[in-house]
Amino acid sequence: MQTFTIKSPLDMHLHLRDSEMLRLVAPYSAEAFAGGVIMPNITPPITTLEALHAYRKRVLEACGNHLFLPYMTMFLKPYEESFFEEAAAHIIAMKLYPAGVTTNSEEGAKNIDSLEPQLKAMEALNIPLSVHAETHSPNLFEREQNFLPILEHIAKKFPKLKVMFEHISSKEGLKLVADYENIYATITLHHMTLTVDDLMGERLNPHLFCKPVVKTESDRDAVLEAALNASPKVMFGSDSAPHPRESKESASAPAGIFSAPAILPKLVEIFERHGKLDNLQNFVSDNAKSIYGINPPEKFVALEKSEYRVPSLCKNRDTEVVPLFAAESCLWGISSVE
Amino acid sequence: MQTFTIKSPLDMHLHLRDSEMLRLVAPYSAEAFAGGVIMPNITPPITTLEALHAYRKRVLEACGNHLFLPYMTMFLKPYEESFFEEAAAHIIAMKLYPAGVTTNSEEGAKNIDSLEPQLKAMEALNIPLSVHAETHSPNLFEREQNFLPILEHIAKKFPKLKVMFEHISSKEGLKLVADYENIYATITLHHMTLTVDDLMGERLNPHLFCKPVVKTESDRDAVLEAALNASPKVMFGSDSAPHPRESKESASAPAGIFSAPAILPKLVEIFERHGKLDNLQNFVSDNAKSIYGINPPEKFVALEKSEYRVPSLCKNRDTEVVPLFAAESCLWGISSVE
Repeated sequence: MQTFTIKSPLDMHLHLRDSEMLRLVAPYSAEAFAGGVIMPNITPPITTLEALHAYRKRVLEACGNHLFLPYMTMFLKPYEESFFEEAAAHIIAMKLYPAGVTTNSEEGAKNIDSLEPQLKAMEALNIPLSVHAETHSPNLFEREQNFLPILEHIAKKFPKLKVMFEHISSKEGLKLVADYENIYATITLHHMTLTVDDLMGERLNPHLFCKPVVKTESDRDAVLEAALNASPKVMFGSDSAPHPRESKESASAPAGIFSAPAILPKLVEIFERHGKLDNLQNFVSDNAKSIYGINPPEKFVALEKSEYRVPSLCKNRDTEVVPLFAAESCLWGISSVE
Repeated sequence: MQTFTIKSPLDMHLHLRDSEMLRLVAPYSAEAFAGGVIMPNITPPITTLEALHAYRKRVLEACGNHLFLPYMTMFLKPYEESFFEEAAAHIIAMKLYPAGVTTNSEEGAKNIDSLEPQLKAMEALNIPLSVHAETHSPNLFEREQNFLPILEHIAKKFPKLKVMFEHISSKEGLKLVADYENIYATITLHHMTLTVDDLMGERLNPHLFCKPVVKTESDRDAVLEAALNASPKVMFGSDSAPHPRESKESASAPAGIFSAPAILPKLVEIFERHGKLDNLQNFVSDNAKSIYGINPPEKFVALEKSEYRVPSLCKNRDTEVVPLFAAESCLWGISSVE
């Protein structure tokens, strides 16, 4: 039996939500990964250390016996500069949401320049800036591209600030990452596999609706290539973002794709198909360790080449979520975790 | 009270479905319009005169006491040429769906060539060709544009064939209509009012998902302008296309917007807002009469300027459909029909 083992896989962009949903989805990530960057956009968003510690505790409880280190983040706000010194030890990054662009981001930054003192403090303390890089401009397909000048502005003005371009989805975005030493990117499973035609080329599948929206074939191919080559500037971040099934299958579906149950089997399958398995360790762990300067728990996740079927539905008593690649077969499945 | 009266409004592209759905939706169109072009894509599609007569009878029954003339169409297939002579008296057009075409425009043109004897017969008998002008190419936003060379090819090869470019949705498409004497277009209410951001700029609304998909602001503005100016080459065709609510609010939503309950109130509101009320009679009736050479029943539909609320849901015993502009207010409502 062919096997492939990943050491300490990391998911550098993860939504675990809260309460019942947290308890449902956390085990999928906690089993397969050694750690993950936990997004702060729960309700209310994480804006105090008290809230952060309490949320971290709930996350760890939901992970059960799995060895999984949650790297916590906070919502970037006009905090006092002294607050960053206090927070630095407890967070891996501050998350910047342009107001309103994604789930629970209504409180996000309305004007980046007004956050200059905060960005300066973060630069000095080596706290990375994690960015949902989209404007509010009309035509959602162009919002990432329209945000690039803002990223450029930040990268130039704060050359020692590490800027994390999250869930990168466009070829223009990837060019920017290559052009600036202090801009890095996370890449999701869905942006390396899907186009807008998967979302709605024939029928419309709301479970494939996310922000940034999946784009053209050439964007998808550029993102896939960046992942396969595993340049030191990019790393895996799933942006796995569950919503209850009844909310996704409604007249007003929120953005977010729940990919957690499919990730490692699909990544191994994709990297193998392209003859790039040698790069997967870098993409899904080592690059992130270097970029963030972290040392995650040692955990060996072995996959074997035998059919794994992604669940058609993930559910507990009160909550149902439809995962990415629901009911589809993968060539590889997780066989052991040590 | 301000009033506005339209003489014999016509909906030149209408899906009435069958059975319970037909009985639910037909009265909305039959009340407000003097006639409509009834699309043949029921199950099974209309491909014989027997099926056509039987469907016409069911349509008329569903229209109840409303004065409404259904102009029938059939699926274009490789019928014997003699069949067109027989069919001519019973149909207003033959409908070509891109399933009969193929992935790219070059091959599409080749496939169209296989229908040459049929198109020639239609040209000789003055039977218009109604076209869903989209290829199957990847990126659904470009499918209409990719179909334009096929339309051009048909228009050139059969200069006396009237080609109806249905539910036109792009500025490039409108340019083609202007360039060819024998290409005409229908314009929907949704393509003159919505962009892709209405579909999924914030949350995703499957009730606004249709083919061709609603596009950018500049496409929407071009379509709106063409409607407002009511050039003799364009006419109103709603493409009102109901699907059951549970099917639209699912993991696999079909394309189609049910606009029938909102049409005339919204059209009067839009044309008035742009100071173009004088053009509405042409757009919603007279242009179609000239283009198709038809003489619909005389029917005067009066609207008055008092609030009309579009239903939040249209339902009968077994079927529920969410209409376009559900629960929204219009400045105008239908006050009398004579």
